Amino acid sequence: MSDLKFRGYAIKDEKNWTQFELLDFEPMAWRDDLIDIEVQYCGVCSSDVHTITGGWGKPELPLVSGHEVGGIARKVGSAVKSIKVGDRVVVGAQIDSCGKCRACSTQNEQYCPEQVDTYNAKSHDGKVTQGGYSTAIRAPEQFVFSVPDALPLEDAAPMACGGLTVYSPMKRGGVTKGTKLGVAGLGGLGHLAVLLGVAMGAEVTVFTHQEDKVADAKKMGATDVVLTTEKDWAKPYFQKLDFIVCTIDVSSALPLTDLTSCLWINGTLHIVAMPDDELAPFQTQSLAANGAKLGVSHIGAKVEAEEMYRLAAEKGVRVWKEVVPMKDVAKAVQGVKNNEVRYRYVLKQDIN
Amino acid sequence: MSDLKFRGYAIKDEKNWTQFELLDFEPMAWRDDLIDIEVQYCGVCSSDVHTITGGWGKPELPLVSGHEVGGIARKVGSAVKSIKVGDRVVVGAQIDSCGKCRACSTQNEQYCPEQVDTYNAKSHDGKVTQGGYSTAIRAPEQFVFSVPDALPLEDAAPMACGGLTVYSPMKRGGVTKGTKLGVAGLGGLGHLAVLLGVAMGAEVTVFTHQEDKVADAKKMGATDVVLTTEKDWAKPYFQKLDFIVCTIDVSSALPLTDLTSCLWINGTLHIVAMPDDELAPFQTQSLAANGAKLGVSHIGAKVEAEEMYRLAAEKGVRVWKEVVPMKDVAKAVQGVKNNEVRYRYVLKQDIN
Repeated sequence: MSDLKFRGYAIKDEKNWTQFELLDFEPMAWRDDLIDIEVQYCGVCSSDVHTITGGWGKPELPLVSGHEVGGIARKVGSAVKSIKVGDRVVVGAQIDSCGKCRACSTQNEQYCPEQVDTYNAKSHDGKVTQGGYSTAIRAPEQFVFSVPDALPLEDAAPMACGGLTVYSPMKRGGVTKGTKLGVAGLGGLGHLAVLLGVAMGAEVTVFTHQEDKVADAKKMGATDVVLTTEKDWAKPYFQKLDFIVCTIDVSSALPLTDLTSCLWINGTLHIVAMPDDELAPFQTQSLAANGAKLGVSHIGAKVEAEEMYRLAAEKGVRVWKEVVPMKDVAKAVQGVKNNEVRYRYVLKQDIN
Repeated sequence: MSDLKFRGYAIKDEKNWTQFELLDFEPMAWRDDLIDIEVQYCGVCSSDVHTITGGWGKPELPLVSGHEVGGIARKVGSAVKSIKVGDRVVVGAQIDSCGKCRACSTQNEQYCPEQVDTYNAKSHDGKVTQGGYSTAIRAPEQFVFSVPDALPLEDAAPMACGGLTVYSPMKRGGVTKGTKLGVAGLGGLGHLAVLLGVAMGAEVTVFTHQEDKVADAKKMGATDVVLTTEKDWAKPYFQKLDFIVCTIDVSSALPLTDLTSCLWINGTLHIVAMPDDELAPFQTQSLAANGAKLGVSHIGAKVEAEEMYRLAAEKGVRVWKEVVPMKDVAKAVQGVKNNEVRYRYVLKQDIN
């Protein structure tokens, strides 16, 4: 058994969100369903930036963010069945739930009313949760996912939140072989939606306003790329797509009714980004010409994460990433904020 | 064969939308798939009021509205197979479509890009369509629905638009025996959603801001009625309902996130009203706590109308209505505008 130190890069003020300092912290109190993980990699998610900049409201301070955590199980509670010391594992954006309610009993634990975020939340023992820009993370078995041997940990880590957030709604939305899938926005989530959509057998059309991403989208496997800076870009796609995953992270930049016009009848525009700003007012009947739906979701369930990892291993999915030492976290969060990332920063452990 | 006169109550100016005058009009040019119907009843739909008041934009003038038309087939084209002279029939809010596209080929003719509204639209021969506040209506077989013997025509007429508009999304949304169904707003559409939802076997919860409608909702078959003027009205219903039909006709009065909080995970708040005003801005993540969806739809398909009429006949569904002579149309549209109707005006033929 190991006694890991819990020490991570924290911000102390959301106005100085690029000022990281090392902080020692206490994990949640030990229980026999818990696992202590030595962190090797942590992806940098837009959620981290929304949180540390105060875009989603004032954060708990000091705060270690990071919820795409990959590492090695070093201490395993006596009630844990599926994971043993030495296993390669990941933790995503959720760290706990009640385990008893209707949501928890139906593989919808991400919607448990008592769900706990991996960082910036009150854990059930009252402590503020701290994330994976750190040496170690403690998590219940339910929120630790095993990584298949064929998948590198630095790819598995960013999929723990970014991958699952797009995989869960695509799976629940019926995306399968031959589905005409749209992906709006080609950032971290968008590129994972393309890679996983292709792995699921869908024909993928990407909508982007950035000409410099067109070639990338095709290399990721998209069959079609639409530049939304061109006039009347939506017209040729009228009623053509079955399902659209929308990853556009600024609501004011979301061409809602143009995108929904591209859906086949009763299709869904599924929004997975969580912008700081509100959706602009619209007339509900503007969606009526094809009976479109708007969907929203929140990460995914463990069964879906496991399914996604098996698929990613089998199909050789590799995240488009830049691996940087964890001490360069400030550069990484700025790169996300400035939309310079291509397409995920992954922090590599460097804390002694 | 009969030669019906086409003569109806028209408005000539949307600023004087209660000034109706009798107008002779020309129906669409004859084709062998058409049926001429002698109008006996016409329901008064909120759409009529949105249109004649200019709420949805400037109407074609002069205009005869009305798209809940019940009557007797008096002339039947040679290509018509399912309807014969003397049959009791209805026409709803759609009068034509292309008949060839993917939508028309998949029982989604209401979403045909060339669909033609029953009034205030250009028919395929170029004429402006005129509705059922009139002596007669001419319609293709595809848009004429047969009425079962057990169902009075004055009940069937208002169901042609109002009933179908709620039945289609409930059917497509999986409403069946035991479904926990919410109905928000108890006007014309809302009361039909309750009556048809109960007929489909659902347990219905009604949300209304009008205390004087509570007893009515229970008489219609609702098991539960929630007064949305009470503090924290949504809390006891957190994640309780499978599907909500929202018939609230003023977007600014729509408590969007309170209603979606009442949905079970991935449930749909389905909006069937088409308010003049826009939905207020909201953060998409406000729907994320239960992964709620927003749905919108437009009337229904003929197969769904026929199914609805069979169900209504079998279960003895009767519309809560006030039958008034057609000459009192001004009083009826004012009653709808002022929310005085309980719960549908049905105009009875009185034009010589």
